[in-house]
Amino acid sequence: MNVLNAAGRLVPTENQGRPLTPYQGVGAVMPTGRKHGAPIRSCRDYPADGDKRATSLQEAIAGSGLKNGGSVSTHHHFRNGDMVAAQVFRAAEALGLRDLVWLPSAVFPCHEELIPLIERGVIRRIEGSLNGPLGDLASRGGLPEWAVLRSHGCRYRAIQDGDLHVDLAVVGAPSCDPFGNMTGASGPSACGVLGFAVADTQYADHVIALTDNLVPFPCAPWQIAGNDVDQVVVVDCIGDPSQIVSGTTQVTTSPERLRIAENIAQFALAVGIVRNGWSFQAGAGGVSLAFTLIARDLMRERGLRAQFVRGGSNRYLVEMLESGMADVLLDGQTFDLEGVRSARENRNHVMTSPFTSYNYHGKGHFASMIDLTALGATEVDLDFNANVVSHSDGRMMHGIGGWQDALFAKCTVLAVPTLRSRVPIVRRELTTFCGPSELIDVVVTERGVAVNPRRTDLIEAAHDAGFALSSLDAFLNYAENLAEGAPATSDRSGDVVGLITWVDGTILDTVHRTSLS
Amino acid sequence: MNVLNAAGRLVPTENQGRPLTPYQGVGAVMPTGRKHGAPIRSCRDYPADGDKRATSLQEAIAGSGLKNGGSVSTHHHFRNGDMVAAQVFRAAEALGLRDLVWLPSAVFPCHEELIPLIERGVIRRIEGSLNGPLGDLASRGGLPEWAVLRSHGCRYRAIQDGDLHVDLAVVGAPSCDPFGNMTGASGPSACGVLGFAVADTQYADHVIALTDNLVPFPCAPWQIAGNDVDQVVVVDCIGDPSQIVSGTTQVTTSPERLRIAENIAQFALAVGIVRNGWSFQAGAGGVSLAFTLIARDLMRERGLRAQFVRGGSNRYLVEMLESGMADVLLDGQTFDLEGVRSARENRNHVMTSPFTSYNYHGKGHFASMIDLTALGATEVDLDFNANVVSHSDGRMMHGIGGWQDALFAKCTVLAVPTLRSRVPIVRRELTTFCGPSELIDVVVTERGVAVNPRRTDLIEAAHDAGFALSSLDAFLNYAENLAEGAPATSDRSGDVVGLITWVDGTILDTVHRTSLS
Repeated sequence: MNVLNAAGRLVPTENQGRPLTPYQGVGAVMPTGRKHGAPIRSCRDYPADGDKRATSLQEAIAGSGLKNGGSVSTHHHFRNGDMVAAQVFRAAEALGLRDLVWLPSAVFPCHEELIPLIERGVIRRIEGSLNGPLGDLASRGGLPEWAVLRSHGCRYRAIQDGDLHVDLAVVGAPSCDPFGNMTGASGPSACGVLGFAVADTQYADHVIALTDNLVPFPCAPWQIAGNDVDQVVVVDCIGDPSQIVSGTTQVTTSPERLRIAENIAQFALAVGIVRNGWSFQAGAGGVSLAFTLIARDLMRERGLRAQFVRGGSNRYLVEMLESGMADVLLDGQTFDLEGVRSARENRNHVMTSPFTSYNYHGKGHFASMIDLTALGATEVDLDFNANVVSHSDGRMMHGIGGWQDALFAKCTVLAVPTLRSRVPIVRRELTTFCGPSELIDVVVTERGVAVNPRRTDLIEAAHDAGFALSSLDAFLNYAENLAEGAPATSDRSGDVVGLITWVDGTILDTVHRTSLS
Repeated sequence: MNVLNAAGRLVPTENQGRPLTPYQGVGAVMPTGRKHGAPIRSCRDYPADGDKRATSLQEAIAGSGLKNGGSVSTHHHFRNGDMVAAQVFRAAEALGLRDLVWLPSAVFPCHEELIPLIERGVIRRIEGSLNGPLGDLASRGGLPEWAVLRSHGCRYRAIQDGDLHVDLAVVGAPSCDPFGNMTGASGPSACGVLGFAVADTQYADHVIALTDNLVPFPCAPWQIAGNDVDQVVVVDCIGDPSQIVSGTTQVTTSPERLRIAENIAQFALAVGIVRNGWSFQAGAGGVSLAFTLIARDLMRERGLRAQFVRGGSNRYLVEMLESGMADVLLDGQTFDLEGVRSARENRNHVMTSPFTSYNYHGKGHFASMIDLTALGATEVDLDFNANVVSHSDGRMMHGIGGWQDALFAKCTVLAVPTLRSRVPIVRRELTTFCGPSELIDVVVTERGVAVNPRRTDLIEAAHDAGFALSSLDAFLNYAENLAEGAPATSDRSGDVVGLITWVDGTILDTVHRTSLS
């Protein structure tokens, strides 16, 4: 059965026998009940000397009690260099396990190597954002069951609330001691911070730390305590260092994208967001990096400092921290070698996690306390609703990441080109509905800045500052003229292949099988 | 109803309508079920700007939903300078609340000011270790209900397992931001690490941070995340700095106690425990400090290093860390200003908590991985069982602290004088049974070293090294001769006033009303 939700989308009310709640609006659902509890264990069942090493991943999985149909989580700290997921599911296959549910915190193109395991029935369902070859596979209907897409914060919430049960979590640990204390800040596979594994280590039935860099107890300071770890497995390699972090992160050189970054910065300055003690969140994409640099220069010229900056950390944020332009760097994911070094050395480079930053079922989160957050999008409709997971051809090509969570910033800016591969980004109708208008304040393109009419305060501030605003209509008209007409309406007639979850666990939209490819 | 437990003590099977399990031996009980879950909250119900300040403690308690008979926890990070507990219960009284259950992580003589609140019916029961005036009050039968004594680890476990429900936790925060991120490492009431509040902030229904030092968001690096905090209250003072940490910690000058410390060190060296890469735990008492200094000198002479040291941190452990004689300092409680400075500055001075160090219902704990732990005791029987909470007159005069938990070390040494105030410490029968012989390896007095016959390895090693051992019988005979006869048998005929819990939650012994005072 399908029902119309508060976003105007038809969504199903059940998945795999579990009831689904349709999206009811931002903050409309009040949760009840208590957080999930991991099983109570006893020291009597763990080695007193703290040495929890198993001889192989296969032995460890066998010892975890994982059964056919069970759920297994891995994390994307190693990004496109991840070697954890493939090792885990190959070991599971060798044990004869089938029909597993994979709960990645995100997938990357490298996970193409899991496709044969899906085809052989080892993996039956994926609950997590998809992109690359797996997104393509899912869009073609290549997964036996619906993909369930959750943001980083929603993934934490789902595990915390007991919506998403983790039978086995396997955490790739760049440095780990035999007890399971681990950090991502050092080791050959150093990735910086390990925040995406926090939910799993707190709530999973069984936790395995997989490391290629065993260090003596205690691995200090640890990011995740061994007291949440059942077994430690040492393997040759957990990630390809060249794909984990960049040597350096690269600012965009596209004049059009530089123009977007410049527009965000000038707008933020004009309306008074860039001021002494402000805060911002920017990722490691080319536009975000350009924005970071422009904002840094504006601040430097005016002698301004940031109270804190939040990333996806990179060398530019590290430079701001180290030069005293920001007091604290709140790091959710480390993107380059300078970020890793800073995470290791600097006490004011602080590991955050989806618990601290994004969990909507917490006692507040950091996301809502940030003055300005700049994000991307694949589509924006004329009401300032937006899509981030699918291209306009309907294919799931981007993870949600922390996008939905980050929308809660005091000023959320979507930074988009007016056209991408000749397809207008502003549209009359979204292919996939990922983020509601209530939380999207500003859309910035290379053509200018459009402010959500709800934000009369920003519109007034821009007016007072003599900053000329544009509009979504203007972007749309411009793009449609160039593209010679509106893009085809999205074809949503295919079978459902994925669910878009809102941060509170309600169902925001469906993703459909594409006729393409 | 009373039953005989595995320690040979008669213990009750019920308290306040809740069933009790008698002690069944070390590691005899396998826990079942899942950890307790705190209520699921939502960001919609917390300020988006992260400012959770209430105008007063009274307003915050009113907002917490605390009811008559509810449970309220506080922590002993401020030791004998604590001003949190009194403020909390006075505010509760002003709100008309009664019959509250107080769950302190420990009490100190300063808490004498709570006695009038007990007498006026604001506090009905105390679940926590007692000492000083409150221990005396309890021993005289001055509490309406039994005191329930738990070690630090057992307190964590009880809260985790749901045995001990915390309706309201009030955490004194030496530095805290409006969101509730907090640290003990800075501020006028700086106390070092805040580990004792970890269980409460994770599992309580409601958490209030009480601070006298509000700092801008984010208080980084935080020891406890504001995401676990409901409200923040700023008050003039949360602790008396002169009573929180010492300016400097003092080594004993008593020749007898120095002799005990020397005996531990020489024994540990002889049997090979003091070696390159060893680890030890020592507190901030005079004998422990003397042992730390002697061990340091022995190591220095021999060019040895410790893999880690664990404390109660103090300037001597900090000096070992900073001079490179130890790689890591695992700090459960900070005892002096040097400890506070180090906790603030040094990434290898790591905050631990009862979760990491002592929780018996965890996936191992740090306590069992320590080569040598030196502890005190009030009594030891001829079988190497020991008492730590009561004097031989039966009065509860010492908290259990982490004593029971720390017994799990690879070599647990009880450091005791043969006589204390003319009362022999080695006895035929314990007044109160707190620690089982299976876990107590060595008893050291100023007269020599006695090794538990179970530890044939240590006895052989001492023999091989030509280290002459003594015996508990020898200590007893010597003490009884000096004391002119055996001490009176403990009078356990009075009403039960307290329960001694074992680390797994089973009941180890009872404490009885004394006829004294």
